[in-house]
Amino acid sequence: MSMIHEVELNTEGLPQVVMKPIPTPEKPAFNLVSRESHAEDSIIDVGGVRIGGREFAVIAGPCSVEDEESLMTTALSVRDAGGSMMRGGAFKPRTSPYSFQGLGETGLKLLSRAKDVTGLPVVTEVMDAGEIDLVGGYADMLQIGSRNSQNFSLLKSLGRVDKPILLKRGLMTTIDEFLNSAEYILAAGNPRVVLCERGIRTFETATRNTLDLSAVPILKERTHLPVIVDPSHAVGDNRYVCPLAKAALAVGADGLMVEVHAHPEQAKCDGKQSLDPETFRRLMEELSTMAVHFGRSVKVASPSPR
Amino acid sequence: MSMIHEVELNTEGLPQVVMKPIPTPEKPAFNLVSRESHAEDSIIDVGGVRIGGREFAVIAGPCSVEDEESLMTTALSVRDAGGSMMRGGAFKPRTSPYSFQGLGETGLKLLSRAKDVTGLPVVTEVMDAGEIDLVGGYADMLQIGSRNSQNFSLLKSLGRVDKPILLKRGLMTTIDEFLNSAEYILAAGNPRVVLCERGIRTFETATRNTLDLSAVPILKERTHLPVIVDPSHAVGDNRYVCPLAKAALAVGADGLMVEVHAHPEQAKCDGKQSLDPETFRRLMEELSTMAVHFGRSVKVASPSPR
Amino acid sequence: MSMIHEVELNTEGLPQVVMKPIPTPEKPAFNLVSRESHAEDSIIDVGGVRIGGREFAVIAGPCSVEDEESLMTTALSVRDAGGSMMRGGAFKPRTSPYSFQGLGETGLKLLSRAKDVTGLPVVTEVMDAGEIDLVGGYADMLQIGSRNSQNFSLLKSLGRVDKPILLKRGLMTTIDEFLNSAEYILAAGNPRVVLCERGIRTFETATRNTLDLSAVPILKERTHLPVIVDPSHAVGDNRYVCPLAKAALAVGADGLMVEVHAHPEQAKCDGKQSLDPETFRRLMEELSTMAVHFGRSVKVASPSPR
Amino acid sequence: MSMIHEVELNTEGLPQVVMKPIPTPEKPAFNLVSRESHAEDSIIDVGGVRIGGREFAVIAGPCSVEDEESLMTTALSVRDAGGSMMRGGAFKPRTSPYSFQGLGETGLKLLSRAKDVTGLPVVTEVMDAGEIDLVGGYADMLQIGSRNSQNFSLLKSLGRVDKPILLKRGLMTTIDEFLNSAEYILAAGNPRVVLCERGIRTFETATRNTLDLSAVPILKERTHLPVIVDPSHAVGDNRYVCPLAKAALAVGADGLMVEVHAHPEQAKCDGKQSLDPETFRRLMEELSTMAVHFGRSVKVASPSPR
Repeated sequence: MSMIHEVELNTEGLPQVVMKPIPTPEKPAFNLVSRESHAEDSIIDVGGVRIGGREFAVIAGPCSVEDEESLMTTALSVRDAGGSMMRGGAFKPRTSPYSFQGLGETGLKLLSRAKDVTGLPVVTEVMDAGEIDLVGGYADMLQIGSRNSQNFSLLKSLGRVDKPILLKRGLMTTIDEFLNSAEYILAAGNPRVVLCERGIRTFETATRNTLDLSAVPILKERTHLPVIVDPSHAVGDNRYVCPLAKAALAVGADGLMVEVHAHPEQAKCDGKQSLDPETFRRLMEELSTMAVHFGRSVKVASPSPR
Repeated sequence: MSMIHEVELNTEGLPQVVMKPIPTPEKPAFNLVSRESHAEDSIIDVGGVRIGGREFAVIAGPCSVEDEESLMTTALSVRDAGGSMMRGGAFKPRTSPYSFQGLGETGLKLLSRAKDVTGLPVVTEVMDAGEIDLVGGYADMLQIGSRNSQNFSLLKSLGRVDKPILLKRGLMTTIDEFLNSAEYILAAGNPRVVLCERGIRTFETATRNTLDLSAVPILKERTHLPVIVDPSHAVGDNRYVCPLAKAALAVGADGLMVEVHAHPEQAKCDGKQSLDPETFRRLMEELSTMAVHFGRSVKVASPSPR
Repeated sequence: MSMIHEVELNTEGLPQVVMKPIPTPEKPAFNLVSRESHAEDSIIDVGGVRIGGREFAVIAGPCSVEDEESLMTTALSVRDAGGSMMRGGAFKPRTSPYSFQGLGETGLKLLSRAKDVTGLPVVTEVMDAGEIDLVGGYADMLQIGSRNSQNFSLLKSLGRVDKPILLKRGLMTTIDEFLNSAEYILAAGNPRVVLCERGIRTFETATRNTLDLSAVPILKERTHLPVIVDPSHAVGDNRYVCPLAKAALAVGADGLMVEVHAHPEQAKCDGKQSLDPETFRRLMEELSTMAVHFGRSVKVASPSPR
Repeated sequence: MSMIHEVELNTEGLPQVVMKPIPTPEKPAFNLVSRESHAEDSIIDVGGVRIGGREFAVIAGPCSVEDEESLMTTALSVRDAGGSMMRGGAFKPRTSPYSFQGLGETGLKLLSRAKDVTGLPVVTEVMDAGEIDLVGGYADMLQIGSRNSQNFSLLKSLGRVDKPILLKRGLMTTIDEFLNSAEYILAAGNPRVVLCERGIRTFETATRNTLDLSAVPILKERTHLPVIVDPSHAVGDNRYVCPLAKAALAVGADGLMVEVHAHPEQAKCDGKQSLDPETFRRLMEELSTMAVHFGRSVKVASPSPR
């Protein structure tokens, strides 16, 4: 066993050296995320939506929650088109401290109201361990954004939470590192993790990032966790989101995360990459038809309890 | 007009300066590859196979031509599964001068014999302007490999040839540069160019390169030229080729280039990424079923004139 | 002014919509990190060591604090060779949850003892806002590691601390994003930030990362903050650390962060990239001689108060 | 021995299969470029300039040869400042076929005249095997540009030439691939190769490419061939060329390739990255003073035979 010299104060208040074993987390025989440790696909239940099974889950909504009217319009259009869940940012990670940082708790309240109206579960980002209780009070699923994909403190904190986690791949994260980040959450006690491929940073500038669809079959082979794809953030341009969404279904993803905004041209954040409601509805129809070829189903729009 | 001072020898053999205009190629109003210059999709005919239209063309075969028996076995399995064209390298670009460099003309003769037997047109790589006549004597389509994607001399030379060209994207080539490389060929007089996305180089090491499927809808928007996808070289592992092939169809590609080898485990070059004939046959069936959803058809296997 | 609809509960406990201005941080006329806002070089004092002025500051020590004996041996060799400050990780960000995570507070106590013995100020990493008070109780400077370079919550928290901050560039952080991360700290109230270039992630695998020395003159042009270079983490191999350290001085950096370990071959973490004490001593001598050509001085080793 | 079935026509004109050994180049016990095969530094003589020895060789001149007056002005300023050799492009690889492609033979004649006037040897790029004789008739050293770094046909052709070769690293060429490209030239018979690091393609956009100075000590360890650095093309901005040039000397390079233009603001190509003559002169003075610390000498300007 590996030992260290720890310095402690003795009874006279003077430092003395004590030998102690090095405290390292116990490694399981196999990584908890691996297929070796759990051969069957894990199905993660998020407020009744089952991600990782036969249903191809589509999470949709605006980049950031901005105001009640546009959120409700968007939420209803997502529900009516057959979306499984709502997304919307209340705490926004922004490159500049002077950019719009999200509405914070006000945004969470609006999301919660959208959930009441549509019946759709809600996922939103947590940027800090200190926000977990607040965000967890409103959201059905907590998202770790790409910039925090290797924020190990946050990963550990979310590993101790009784909520499903949506873990986004970092811009700079290899597939192996991505799985290790998920392992942090499982090792800390939370087995309900969904992985999200959302593009990596490369030299190409025609797209915001480069969507790495090869990662999907590789992840599906190595881990039992569900894998979804976010084409909106990857490509950064709504003209290319629909073909990539269909490619994500074809390549074997368990679902999508797509930005939809009632009025993309007015969005405060990332409007260029948001689909309008009508385009989203048509995408859902196409995915629904395609899905049968892949042994999948895409939720059919149900009459709303408006 | 921009002028230069050119030095010429005068009648007494002494240098003298003469003013001349700078010789620059004339730029057309729009780039020849652009949608602005040609709104409809270009359909490139390669020995009867029409790439860029309704048919989803599947080019398949070994990385390199190695011997007659395995080539013929592979060729017949490609034909029987419904493949549109044969591929196979005779002149191989290899990182090390001591790696197998291809069979050269012997390989071309074998390809030609495979064509006679199967009736499938053949594409193979040209690495040097000096090889164009030789290779063109056997092949129906000439390929420019990824390492030569910005070999402008070779591009110009192939622009003066009366054969369709398969231009692969370089490992380091942006979408904009890729279109400019195609423009070199069209500007030199050859309008029959098919573009091939085959993965770009990124930090990720789980795959050989990162297949950039976002490039497909972007290219289809900007150019009238057909765009196909080579998942085999991109991912470098046959376990992931089939899902990516299906994603390529879903994202809007006009065809595929896939490595197939009668005995992948015995291949001299890139065996790890080659499909065996049975896997390829199943892939073709799946693509054929999928294709109808995308307004495409995948050639059905026809009885062979063996 | 931009307004939002905020939902509040009215006196009867029912939600009602209230119009409120969007809360966005006030943007100064120029970014606080920019040369436009502060033309002269900022000099950051860390326990008497002045970074950003004439002195070329060399921060050295082990990747992680492991045990008292090796830390003290290393610390004394750093001091004797002329090092300005000690580095050493107590809380370690590790890709896998099962890797050695650092000694935590025990490590901080050992660092503190090394400081008492050598008189050198100490810098160590903070991974979580919750650790700031603990770490700040022992360290003279708090480090933000590359994986947290865009952990905006942590940046804001460290912006409210009365300690100098060493901000490392992320593996995939552009120069512009790096400056924005520093701006978060200054905007939150802490002007004492030192930037550290430590390599970016590229396709090249011969080095762990690619040290981007071009970033140094660009950063020095755009910001008044000091810029140091960490060649050890960038290149990941002690054979190449010394030439890159000299290049960092030549390119205009204000200092270095170098890994030194009493017994590199026994290090628990990153031993391959650590210099042994004798190599470090020779490096300091070479830097000292070189420095005069760049209008810099490298601290001369002084007799220790052992 | 590995055999293939080759198809030949028999005396009756019908194809028949013949067994033949696979023709592969013979691999030497060690790669010819490696330190294992040749322990001492190779010194390459280019018209009297010795690259790879004590002298730190500085090759300077315009990106492309444009007209006699500006070339002569530039050439004299390079000579007067102590430059070792002239550079200047006559055949220019350009992304677009409609960009200025260089003056061709006219440019070669002007370079030759500049050589007559200054006495400096000349290096210029060859883009095609068909140009080798023409370019070789004027230039002292032939350059392979970064886009042709893995143009194996061209490498083999230049391996059969009796001229020293300047081989530039490709934008996406690993260090290992770069050495293999040099091996192609040596294996074909030409041992006189100088390697040039000129930046790799990364996600960073503040610089045109990312200068990889770590490559210098790694290359110097693995190969006996000289290694020089081109900061001008890497960084693409003359404000940062001088600090990077000094860093190149400090990191152990054997020389520099720097763009100098009599009137950078009027250059047809890459003017933004060219130094003006006065800045170049000051750089040479600084390098000359620095060089003594690295056991190097930088050629002192000699009175011209104007």
